[in-house]
Amino acid sequence: AQAPEENYGSNTQVQAMSESLAATQQQVQALQDSYFEMAHANKVFVDEILHLQKLVKSQTQVHEQLLTY
Amino acid sequence: AQAPEENYGSNTQVQAMSESLAATQQQVQALQDSYFEMAHANKVFVDEILHLQKLVKSQTQVHEQLLTY
Amino acid sequence: AQAPEENYGSNTQVQAMSESLAATQQQVQALQDSYFEMAHANKVFVDEILHLQKLVKSQTQVHEQLLTY
Repeated sequence: AQAPEENYGSNTQVQAMSESLAATQQQVQALQDSYFEMAHANKVFVDEILHLQKLVKSQTQVHEQLLTY
Repeated sequence: AQAPEENYGSNTQVQAMSESLAATQQQVQALQDSYFEMAHANKVFVDEILHLQKLVKSQTQVHEQLLTY
Repeated sequence: AQAPEENYGSNTQVQAMSESLAATQQQVQALQDSYFEMAHANKVFVDEILHLQKLVKSQTQVHEQLLTY
């Protein structure tokens, strides 16, 4: 007869996998938190870029007025 | 003799890990999709920042012309 | 008596999970590397946006001088 170790995942292996999976889940959770932080920061970027676009556009209009004096 | 439960991962534990691993893989996949979306959005940011840089540079040249009139 | 296969995770299932977990960990590691790269790129964005803000602010001051001539 075959030894049980050859047929079934050994307890040691399953425990090691369980710990490895838990560590992976923590890593994924930390990465997800960081991702949401970055997504929030990017919204601030978009707002600032839109604000800069408006400012630059209005400056271009000032230039047109100055140059057609 | 030891009970089998002490030597091998119980079926219940292995099933629970299997489900936990599947959930982790879905979370990783969703995070990867979100990451690619954000990477795409960031390319748009870079283009817009480069465009603003050009506009502001050309406005600085207009200023130099106006001020040296 | 129940067959052992019904009570414990089969070796085949545990091996498959082990490989699946290793693949997930590689995916998470690659995603984390990409995230750190993007976080670095975002710092460059922030610096450039701050630089543009300064330039546009100083141009607004030039306009005020020009318009109050």
